Amino acid sequence: MTPLRTALLQGPAGVPESVEQSLGVLEEAAGRAAARGARVLVTSEMFLTGYAVGERVAELAETRRGPAGERVARIAARHGIAIAYGYPERDGQAVFNAARLVGPDGAGLADYRKTHLFGPYERAAFTPGDTQVVQAGLDGHRVGLLICYDVEFPEAVRAHALAGTEVLLVPTALMRPYEFVSTTLVPTRAYENGIHIAYANRCGPEGEWDFAGLSALAGPDGTVRARAGAGAEFLVADADPAVLRAAREETPYLADRRPELYRTHLG
Amino acid sequence: MTPLRTALLQGPAGVPESVEQSLGVLEEAAGRAAARGARVLVTSEMFLTGYAVGERVAELAETRRGPAGERVARIAARHGIAIAYGYPERDGQAVFNAARLVGPDGAGLADYRKTHLFGPYERAAFTPGDTQVVQAGLDGHRVGLLICYDVEFPEAVRAHALAGTEVLLVPTALMRPYEFVSTTLVPTRAYENGIHIAYANRCGPEGEWDFAGLSALAGPDGTVRARAGAGAEFLVADADPAVLRAAREETPYLADRRPELYRTHLG
Repeated sequence: MTPLRTALLQGPAGVPESVEQSLGVLEEAAGRAAARGARVLVTSEMFLTGYAVGERVAELAETRRGPAGERVARIAARHGIAIAYGYPERDGQAVFNAARLVGPDGAGLADYRKTHLFGPYERAAFTPGDTQVVQAGLDGHRVGLLICYDVEFPEAVRAHALAGTEVLLVPTALMRPYEFVSTTLVPTRAYENGIHIAYANRCGPEGEWDFAGLSALAGPDGTVRARAGAGAEFLVADADPAVLRAAREETPYLADRRPELYRTHLG
Repeated sequence: MTPLRTALLQGPAGVPESVEQSLGVLEEAAGRAAARGARVLVTSEMFLTGYAVGERVAELAETRRGPAGERVARIAARHGIAIAYGYPERDGQAVFNAARLVGPDGAGLADYRKTHLFGPYERAAFTPGDTQVVQAGLDGHRVGLLICYDVEFPEAVRAHALAGTEVLLVPTALMRPYEFVSTTLVPTRAYENGIHIAYANRCGPEGEWDFAGLSALAGPDGTVRARAGAGAEFLVADADPAVLRAAREETPYLADRRPELYRTHLG
């Protein structure tokens, strides 16, 4: 099978709360990604609105197929590339920290709501999701979605791997001083599960936070296929199923688990 | 509470199959560790006999309180230091890849049998253990035991953390080219669970393997408190409960888990 060429857009969307500017950045990135042969473009968490939008998150939130979402779908279709993006999702009275994957024709493929909310801001702003594993097929690859803090829980990524996820797309908003998560924990998650992880972060100061950059495509063999620095950056790298197969032969963690011993302990 | 000063003995025991030589190395290391104020000394996996003993493992195996074990207990008592050591344990017809912790008075505190056997040699030589979490109290700290490949499974370490383990003692026999496990995965395990991990490896060539060294005391805050190189080495560092408490406040992973979402996936 052909590798899934994956583009990661690391950057602030521009001015927080400026959905218009975010869509402009996305349009440009989708064009660059498609020109380099990428089949999917991954943005940061809360890409469309910015992360540090405080109490305005409720009014900025829109439904899955709201006006900004429809424009993302048109960008995807225009450039013939799938896009996984973060945004605040409205569903009735509830607001979720969400990621949506649209296909290269603009059709919705998967919708995920962050299950592990991080810190007081997110807990005040969002309702937590209640479904751990959300997947879709893309060019014959099984891709999954998680958001930021989710990936720090080994259970969440293991659940994906056991359900067949091969490439995990993770819009994120990792702040300093948590660089360890991107440099060390994310490569471990990929290695211990034999999957690729596309971890696309924000960067630079925004509100009370300073985002760490360091976006990465981490491979199932412990290598990092592409790694960003601290500033705005655009990465393209391949998630290769041949690397995945070789890694799972070399370190057959999924086969060597002993779930009957874990059950009583993991609550 | 006082930090648990922990010594890690990295090295081949000397000639494989020479239990006598291993006990000599241990005696010397226990003296050095005690002189530096350590309260526990951790050795590598299969320390007493060597790892690459092939089919002789069955005859080298002895019960928990066999002759070599009794001599370890006397070494511990002589130097007033706890010792966690790896050896092949006989129990009737079965042979386990085991770790035993004896206290500073030489009394047995905990016995663990490796639950995740690695590769064809271990699967042929050993019966897998059937108890994931084995713990003991040591100077007011809750310590646990795992062996090598076990620690690569996030479930095994999570089980310990949820059961209250604060310092995980891990005799290991990590070969090249799996250095990633020590450099990256073990620090992640400590970080994602808010615990200290004392990972004591073999080093250098033995039989068909080349052991990687790189023993470490990994901290709950993502730092590595002490790290060995590739050759024979002796490390001493503190597992400090104050660091553990601060890390768990900073990254409250255990509190932020969502076990109700994992259950259906983790089998």
